[in-house]
Amino acid sequence: MSFGVCYYPEHWPPARWTVDAQMMRAAGLTLVRIGEFAWANMEPAEGQYAWDWLDRAIETLAGAGLQLILGTPTATPPAWLTRAYPDILRVDANGRPRDHGTRRHYCPNSPTYQAYSAGIVTAMLGRYGAHPAVVGWQIDNEFGGGQTARCYCDWCAAAFRRWLQARYGSLAALNEAWGNVFWSQTYSDWAQIAPPGARVDKRSPSHELDYFRFSSDAWVAYQQLQIDLVRRYAPGRVVTTNFMGLFPDLDQYDLAAPLDLVSWDNYPTGNPERWRPRLYAPGRDSRRNDPTYAYDVGEPIITSLAHALTRSLKQRPFWVMEQQCGQINWGDVNPGVRPGSSRLWAWHAVAEGAAAVLYFRWRATRFAHEQYHSGLLHHDGSPDVGYGDHLRLEAERALLDEVMAAPCPPAGVGLLFDFADLWALQLQPHRADFGYLRHLFVYYEALQRLGIPVDLVSPAGDLSPYRLLIAPTAHLAGEALAGRLADYVAGGGTLLLGVRSGFKTPSNLVTADPLPGELQHLVGATVTDWQSLPPEVGWPLVAETPALAALGEDPAGFWVERLRPGKAQVLVRYAGGGAALTMNERGPGRVYYLGWYPPAGQARTLLAYLASQTGLQPIASDLPPGLLALRRAQFIFLLNFTDRPLTATPAGYTITVAPRDVWVGIAEQPDR
Amino acid sequence: MSFGVCYYPEHWPPARWTVDAQMMRAAGLTLVRIGEFAWANMEPAEGQYAWDWLDRAIETLAGAGLQLILGTPTATPPAWLTRAYPDILRVDANGRPRDHGTRRHYCPNSPTYQAYSAGIVTAMLGRYGAHPAVVGWQIDNEFGGGQTARCYCDWCAAAFRRWLQARYGSLAALNEAWGNVFWSQTYSDWAQIAPPGARVDKRSPSHELDYFRFSSDAWVAYQQLQIDLVRRYAPGRVVTTNFMGLFPDLDQYDLAAPLDLVSWDNYPTGNPERWRPRLYAPGRDSRRNDPTYAYDVGEPIITSLAHALTRSLKQRPFWVMEQQCGQINWGDVNPGVRPGSSRLWAWHAVAEGAAAVLYFRWRATRFAHEQYHSGLLHHDGSPDVGYGDHLRLEAERALLDEVMAAPCPPAGVGLLFDFADLWALQLQPHRADFGYLRHLFVYYEALQRLGIPVDLVSPAGDLSPYRLLIAPTAHLAGEALAGRLADYVAGGGTLLLGVRSGFKTPSNLVTADPLPGELQHLVGATVTDWQSLPPEVGWPLVAETPALAALGEDPAGFWVERLRPGKAQVLVRYAGGGAALTMNERGPGRVYYLGWYPPAGQARTLLAYLASQTGLQPIASDLPPGLLALRRAQFIFLLNFTDRPLTATPAGYTITVAPRDVWVGIAEQPDR
Amino acid sequence: MSFGVCYYPEHWPPARWTVDAQMMRAAGLTLVRIGEFAWANMEPAEGQYAWDWLDRAIETLAGAGLQLILGTPTATPPAWLTRAYPDILRVDANGRPRDHGTRRHYCPNSPTYQAYSAGIVTAMLGRYGAHPAVVGWQIDNEFGGGQTARCYCDWCAAAFRRWLQARYGSLAALNEAWGNVFWSQTYSDWAQIAPPGARVDKRSPSHELDYFRFSSDAWVAYQQLQIDLVRRYAPGRVVTTNFMGLFPDLDQYDLAAPLDLVSWDNYPTGNPERWRPRLYAPGRDSRRNDPTYAYDVGEPIITSLAHALTRSLKQRPFWVMEQQCGQINWGDVNPGVRPGSSRLWAWHAVAEGAAAVLYFRWRATRFAHEQYHSGLLHHDGSPDVGYGDHLRLEAERALLDEVMAAPCPPAGVGLLFDFADLWALQLQPHRADFGYLRHLFVYYEALQRLGIPVDLVSPAGDLSPYRLLIAPTAHLAGEALAGRLADYVAGGGTLLLGVRSGFKTPSNLVTADPLPGELQHLVGATVTDWQSLPPEVGWPLVAETPALAALGEDPAGFWVERLRPGKAQVLVRYAGGGAALTMNERGPGRVYYLGWYPPAGQARTLLAYLASQTGLQPIASDLPPGLLALRRAQFIFLLNFTDRPLTATPAGYTITVAPRDVWVGIAEQPDR
Repeated sequence: MSFGVCYYPEHWPPARWTVDAQMMRAAGLTLVRIGEFAWANMEPAEGQYAWDWLDRAIETLAGAGLQLILGTPTATPPAWLTRAYPDILRVDANGRPRDHGTRRHYCPNSPTYQAYSAGIVTAMLGRYGAHPAVVGWQIDNEFGGGQTARCYCDWCAAAFRRWLQARYGSLAALNEAWGNVFWSQTYSDWAQIAPPGARVDKRSPSHELDYFRFSSDAWVAYQQLQIDLVRRYAPGRVVTTNFMGLFPDLDQYDLAAPLDLVSWDNYPTGNPERWRPRLYAPGRDSRRNDPTYAYDVGEPIITSLAHALTRSLKQRPFWVMEQQCGQINWGDVNPGVRPGSSRLWAWHAVAEGAAAVLYFRWRATRFAHEQYHSGLLHHDGSPDVGYGDHLRLEAERALLDEVMAAPCPPAGVGLLFDFADLWALQLQPHRADFGYLRHLFVYYEALQRLGIPVDLVSPAGDLSPYRLLIAPTAHLAGEALAGRLADYVAGGGTLLLGVRSGFKTPSNLVTADPLPGELQHLVGATVTDWQSLPPEVGWPLVAETPALAALGEDPAGFWVERLRPGKAQVLVRYAGGGAALTMNERGPGRVYYLGWYPPAGQARTLLAYLASQTGLQPIASDLPPGLLALRRAQFIFLLNFTDRPLTATPAGYTITVAPRDVWVGIAEQPDR
Repeated sequence: MSFGVCYYPEHWPPARWTVDAQMMRAAGLTLVRIGEFAWANMEPAEGQYAWDWLDRAIETLAGAGLQLILGTPTATPPAWLTRAYPDILRVDANGRPRDHGTRRHYCPNSPTYQAYSAGIVTAMLGRYGAHPAVVGWQIDNEFGGGQTARCYCDWCAAAFRRWLQARYGSLAALNEAWGNVFWSQTYSDWAQIAPPGARVDKRSPSHELDYFRFSSDAWVAYQQLQIDLVRRYAPGRVVTTNFMGLFPDLDQYDLAAPLDLVSWDNYPTGNPERWRPRLYAPGRDSRRNDPTYAYDVGEPIITSLAHALTRSLKQRPFWVMEQQCGQINWGDVNPGVRPGSSRLWAWHAVAEGAAAVLYFRWRATRFAHEQYHSGLLHHDGSPDVGYGDHLRLEAERALLDEVMAAPCPPAGVGLLFDFADLWALQLQPHRADFGYLRHLFVYYEALQRLGIPVDLVSPAGDLSPYRLLIAPTAHLAGEALAGRLADYVAGGGTLLLGVRSGFKTPSNLVTADPLPGELQHLVGATVTDWQSLPPEVGWPLVAETPALAALGEDPAGFWVERLRPGKAQVLVRYAGGGAALTMNERGPGRVYYLGWYPPAGQARTLLAYLASQTGLQPIASDLPPGLLALRRAQFIFLLNFTDRPLTATPAGYTITVAPRDVWVGIAEQPDR
Repeated sequence: MSFGVCYYPEHWPPARWTVDAQMMRAAGLTLVRIGEFAWANMEPAEGQYAWDWLDRAIETLAGAGLQLILGTPTATPPAWLTRAYPDILRVDANGRPRDHGTRRHYCPNSPTYQAYSAGIVTAMLGRYGAHPAVVGWQIDNEFGGGQTARCYCDWCAAAFRRWLQARYGSLAALNEAWGNVFWSQTYSDWAQIAPPGARVDKRSPSHELDYFRFSSDAWVAYQQLQIDLVRRYAPGRVVTTNFMGLFPDLDQYDLAAPLDLVSWDNYPTGNPERWRPRLYAPGRDSRRNDPTYAYDVGEPIITSLAHALTRSLKQRPFWVMEQQCGQINWGDVNPGVRPGSSRLWAWHAVAEGAAAVLYFRWRATRFAHEQYHSGLLHHDGSPDVGYGDHLRLEAERALLDEVMAAPCPPAGVGLLFDFADLWALQLQPHRADFGYLRHLFVYYEALQRLGIPVDLVSPAGDLSPYRLLIAPTAHLAGEALAGRLADYVAGGGTLLLGVRSGFKTPSNLVTADPLPGELQHLVGATVTDWQSLPPEVGWPLVAETPALAALGEDPAGFWVERLRPGKAQVLVRYAGGGAALTMNERGPGRVYYLGWYPPAGQARTLLAYLASQTGLQPIASDLPPGLLALRRAQFIFLLNFTDRPLTATPAGYTITVAPRDVWVGIAEQPDR
């Protein structure tokens, strides 16, 4: 597996297919994804299938030596289905059903839609499940994309009640778990419970968090319906679906679990617009690109974070199912992309753990919503910028193949990522600019800027490989989480907990215990009070440890928690009283609690200290802004995302990387 | 009556109630409000009451010597009621009914809801109406809060038509009063009239103003339903409800009239976000706190205005039913509150006329929407910052009790405040940044900065005590208002009228007479033309009176009206022609008309002049920004809302007040 | 025909009508528009007509020597009609019907509404069609105003399907024309097709473009229904309707075709707020007035563009049916208007081709939505600023009459304007700040600043008179357009094509041919790639022609297209490679293709060059900003829209124009 492309043969005359297949092969591509969205072509009327065109397309591509990924077309029900069975339509939080003419306008809980989905997928599998060139199946497309993760239809209401009955057993248990005594929200009949739609303001965060969980579970179940069919009718084929990087509305760990591999859709230039406002600190969070970087490469640390999250889903190499290779069409400016940027993105993906990269799309479409989205070819079939970039990659193919076949061993640092925590803080940030991902990004960016490899990791994942485990906010903390973290520390691990950890129970109530609730014994200290602070207000800090003296140079702000140490040692205190950073020795391990939300500089100081305490080495020293240092197995990478040459020093060698270029080295002593 | 707290025993285990009651008493608290929102606990199923828990809670609290205010729980209908009778639900302007899971989602005009409200309130009164420890009743909670003042359901449509029939008698009269000849809006059948919902754009302002009036009346009637029950079944008990300061959607004077006393809910740190954009001049109207003030005290002049409005409702001392005592949860930043701020707010309330202050809430709730709102105790039951502050107040209890028992005699200056005027200007501001409250605040802030005590007063109130009466905009001016103002002036009063006075009839049509319409004879001049001006444009002014020379230093802008004097004298004229400020002697009284919208500096100049003309003395001279000077009967107060010591000179004494501290003096010669 | 006024006699007591009529005549007015919006007065109940009041109003006005334009009142159905037949109501894109209490809340496709419209119009015509003083009829009022151009009701859905059947004949043809193969959007039954409402996101731009076309056609048909009645029952009378300048939602050319003359409603001070954000370049596009101009005159180049578009609809003189004469009520500030500004607007209209100017309105209304809109008289009947201004115009009447009777011969430059192109780019701007009108305005403003007269012209209009034809974006380019442009060039014309020309087919698919698609042979070059660029990025330019050297001083940005010349000559190239401006000689004509989106300075350089190439002379040289130079037949005008005297040099004479004043000259050698 290595490079491929997304292709929509139904958009072009069959006579062109042969030309396209030959051009693909000539460019060195080996994988083609087809089929997604083509339901109306496969089944033009209910029960009447039309396979001839797809037979011919598959034969043409396979005949040219290409391997195929078939996408099931369930993201786009045909008009005859939608019109005959409007109960399949997704209903938004305002109670308005969506309609034909877009994608993802269906409800995963509709039994009607489930039945028709099974029908088309079974028919496709019957036709192509055993085809030797069809090596894999992509289930549906971008689950949850376009704000479609949650539906509020009557099917969902009923399914939600069943889900709650299974979770809580009794109404009394549910009323207690949600704190329904508040504002007479108590339910006396299951039938009284509805999805938390827009008709209700000041909604219960426990009710909503469970609706987020339920909605995520609904997609997992809908996906499983299709996975089961593929497993049955196409044994031995790879099953995947295409994720969307940092997409926060579904629990990606749950979606990934039953798949053979995960893939995601990587559009780097769109990321700053979508993610800077949610990731960068207030004041740095405009939708514009950071001027450090070349204007047409996106924000590489954001892209890296998305790669890292995807990699963490199964803790092994992943695919990029859709890789941007020219301008996109869904941003505010959609800047044109120069030669070299698409190649740089491919190397970036590979360095982060990609085992295959498929470009989106082969040729720009003439039709409908994506007309202005580029492909490897222009609308008129002539090569666009990404095509030239790929030819350059072909010349680097030997090294690329070697890297893409390499595993992704765990990094030395793990960053705990939990979707339920993200949702709980999204529902109640307390201050508008507090975000779970924004907070996590402080730590992630600091590690990237230090050149220290880092993984994301689910609380349910294997924590043992990490020398240092960072939980920016272990927010919903029950006994189970406390136990897993205690085990990790008992195994010699170093754990750093950040603000708002241990604040809530798993059902999103505030703990009645001293903070950090279930984690207080681990921390060996309690939080006596916490405050949100306006931008102009800071609490001066005093470092008790010379190695952390730099932390005292700036005050703590934004969010501060004052600790009263029990068994823990105080490393930094507030000049106004109370501990600010504590360290608790627990057998062979250590637990740090950082009582304030650190800005970028303090985060780097603290993480450099913890790296040195845990024996972690950076990939390169003196990393300038704009240069990323990454490692995959024995390979190390320096990627320059600026328009200037940049220099760094990996393993003692001084390396200068040209603008928008990459340098690859082999680590003499592979190290975590 | 003095200090108390809001308590929700149903949120905590009964075993804790005894501890809480003892802690309350130990802290010196004497009043506890309970019961509001607990309908589902009182009546878990239709007609099945469960009083045991409430009996026990009341006995526990009363047993500890606490006096109780019972809140009727009608702000939060239980799920069984909402599900069985969806016609009780409020419908928004877009026609969407609200739903269970929040509060205030009912319609006051629903006969169903009225019946069930009477049911639960009667049952509560039957149980506790004669209880010796239950000294008062709070009707419902925050009428109109959360944008719920107006409903657009079918019950409301029908009630509105009845209300109109009663008001106008005939359709012909209504068509004329609303100017329905415009755009064929004429009605030929009462049934054609609907609430002015969002399906209609460019709505008639006469139609809308009457809907605002009708909606306000509907809440007054709904409140009366409960008041009547309390009067019948709990004779001798205090009846109140909790107002919301500057809340503009209901006529607070009408709501207050049938109550024994008024109370309000005071959250100073949330005020700047909510009110600065509506009160400060364009350019000063960000949602951020004025940096003059300490970051955690709010904006004291805004808080003062809300106290003053509440005090004016019955022109006597009031309660603070909910007093912020730590961070809130509904702002953008919700800054933490330091020791001392909560004490300062309590003194501020007392200086403005509070007879009792109840903190909201006893202990931070673990549940639902208000999880991040603080109480006197933390979630874990340990004391939070407000608890410590209250202990400090207990040490000052003798003086506090003396002040809280004092009356609130009228100030020397009255500021006319009329909800119908506010609504009319809200519906047709002409320029987006003109607001009734913003305009009024210019005068209010100027008086506060001068240290001159000021009352708000309804046009229907007793105007006679005031030496100076300011009507920033007496906008809807019929014969009745003109008569009341003429009587006031005939009694020797000095009246200042501001721009846009006399512009409209009471049914919100423009007067056909020369401006200021019904008030022109009082003014002794007419407005020949008026203009809205962009920020960069000003009309130079020339003062004809040396004492007002400072007014000529800056031009008039924003809104200018050119006057042609009749009998009135010209004090300031526009350099380009026409009078700008006139004074008309009417027997023993005087009527000033200020023809432009003054910025803060000009307002202070003018009001200092008028104070000197009317013999009004400031409480203190040389008041620096951030220091408030207030008077209540013989007591005078200097309150420092900054982080610096501030000095002023009350009655010839030089007083320095520490940061966030208060100084109290006794006036030697109580003076108005 | 010359000056007149809009009058609503039904708003005032009949006794006043005589006074008003005399005042109108005394002021020199000769035309009065009445009747629009008065349906409820004409037909108070179904089938019961009340003509007495209107008889009397007409006799009063006619008796004073005034000529009348009657407006049909169909913009405002009476309440009895709306309540009895709610199927007449317009339904918005969210599916919500509008309601009584505003205007334009009806659907033009409702057969019910069509029947009742015919009823009232026939009745009016029966009464007044032959009245000698009634010289013209205005059909309805401001078609499409207030975002009412498109309705989404069931009548519309059915009519849309019929429209599509007529346009495409078969579903197969429609599916192909819309590219419905994308996302399974294929229709298998006509009944599946719905209007593209808000329930669908990521809508097909082909579907939407056809809905825009259909909606425009629906209004044309609805207007025709009334035109036919006027033609039948009021022969010899002028038929018009009042347009709204740059209003983009309906195809004004189609609406204008069947009318005798076009008129429009000109509100200069409101234009900057509404149009600056859509016309000025990003960075200059605030809603505030350009400070070059006096604060109370609006933005004259925007006003000129609206005049020019209106003039182009029939390529002859037009009326201003509503002319602002004081402050308006629908902006953010609505600044007051000083003496002189209203006169300047009248001269401006006349210079641009007006044959009549009617002020809106006679007297400010006391009622409803437009209370704060000024008239010639104040609310109290006293003269307002516009009345005085008109008296000044009366003193200039001889010259005015001469100019108003003059024709409007074509200018030397034509600017191609096409509503379907505008809609296509509105639906898919690719970058948020690309707008069809914004792009066109670059060229229009440059010509105005150069003092070169320019017309707008429809692609279906007569192109032959123009020496220079500019198509900023000939976007949807089929064979028909390519043929018309080729004919123009074959006739010796010079054609300038701008970016994104030839990109699409008429059904809004991207062409599969090399760009500019159907126009490539005309251009003699192909676009090999195009890019949107962020603000900070530019492509350096190199001029190959000394006369265009100034173009190389700044880089190209915003939108760039790289050309590969065939037969065309390269005038400017990108330093990084590729042609940027080409010129193709075709027989006696020339075709230029400008490969980037020019900022104002470059546009002026290029147009000065093309003017000199085509022998076009500016009206005046050395035109300073704020001074407009216009020509109508032999008359030339210099209009000063600033607060400073300004000087320019028309035909060798140095002329200084006072602030907000006009200078009129006679061209010695009338020249195009």
